[in-house]
Amino acid sequence: MEEKYFAVDLSVALVHHPVLNKHGDTIASALTNLDLHDIARSSKTYGVNTFYVVTPLGDQQVLAKRIIDHWLDGFGGKYNPHRKEAVELIKVMGSLKAVVDDIRQRREKHPKMVGTSAKNVPGSIGYDKLKSLLFDGDPYLLLFGTAWGLSDELISQVDYFLGPISGISGYNHLSVRSASAIILDRLLGRND
Amino acid sequence: MEEKYFAVDLSVALVHHPVLNKHGDTIASALTNLDLHDIARSSKTYGVNTFYVVTPLGDQQVLAKRIIDHWLDGFGGKYNPHRKEAVELIKVMGSLKAVVDDIRQRREKHPKMVGTSAKNVPGSIGYDKLKSLLFDGDPYLLLFGTAWGLSDELISQVDYFLGPISGISGYNHLSVRSASAIILDRLLGRND
Repeated sequence: MEEKYFAVDLSVALVHHPVLNKHGDTIASALTNLDLHDIARSSKTYGVNTFYVVTPLGDQQVLAKRIIDHWLDGFGGKYNPHRKEAVELIKVMGSLKAVVDDIRQRREKHPKMVGTSAKNVPGSIGYDKLKSLLFDGDPYLLLFGTAWGLSDELISQVDYFLGPISGISGYNHLSVRSASAIILDRLLGRND
Repeated sequence: MEEKYFAVDLSVALVHHPVLNKHGDTIASALTNLDLHDIARSSKTYGVNTFYVVTPLGDQQVLAKRIIDHWLDGFGGKYNPHRKEAVELIKVMGSLKAVVDDIRQRREKHPKMVGTSAKNVPGSIGYDKLKSLLFDGDPYLLLFGTAWGLSDELISQVDYFLGPISGISGYNHLSVRSASAIILDRLLGRND
């Protein structure tokens, strides 16, 4: 049998629905411009395949596409070509189902879904364990929730769940921009 | 001799002057609201002593203080007390000299200054090496440059210099929000 080298096939989804608000209700959150920029740049740094921005709201999809176009075809791309390279990784999608279908079309395989949260979720997996799994050649999809995090219904559907990022203070309220950067570094960074 | 436990005494400075612009000129950059929020939250997570926002520009100092007051005394603090806890770590300073004086006043010791950059700087120190040094009980000050990074003159004054964050793609253009989160995690995070 032919030996085959499998690079990591990791995609990232920034979920704006279904997520929780402060009171625990399920909502669709608004886009934050810098989420797109920062997570695209982190994704590019760590070799992420695609950075999916997931929102069911039509006006938010238009807004996301306008931001992306500014950097791909507009003034932004000429002013800062490095930003263009990162923004090229973004795909705007209306639902998580559409994201999964997109990965299935590319790989003919259902991605393994990995949830993240600032909360402790029973049965969560360690960073080193997930790091080793990522090299099995399957497509993986890492989910980040905006607002107060992914809904419980969504959490119940994932294959793996990463434990919260522990600092040393017990404070656990990182921005999604910072948390996603740290998690990608823990999973894919060369600590040299 | 009495044995004494020294916790890590690390402060962070976000430098808006002297930094480089795209063309390599030394400038004073403008504040970015989310830099303050994100780096304050990361600082709180990893037990940073003080998060210094350094700008010599009077109007920018006023702007920074207005953002901070909104979260400490205004509506923000009531709406989101966790954010208040993070923003409390911020001190606005006119120069790096004022930052050093502030630390000297608290500790009666000159802080050891650690530079960061997306560029390779000769003689840079590894993350694990700096991690072990941090426990020597001395105050450390970690410098992050905005815009296109810390000026060469400033870089020549630091005691240590951290190498750039290597991902796996060769792309090396993280936001200062993401880079600072990753560096604090590498230095102080419990990877569990």
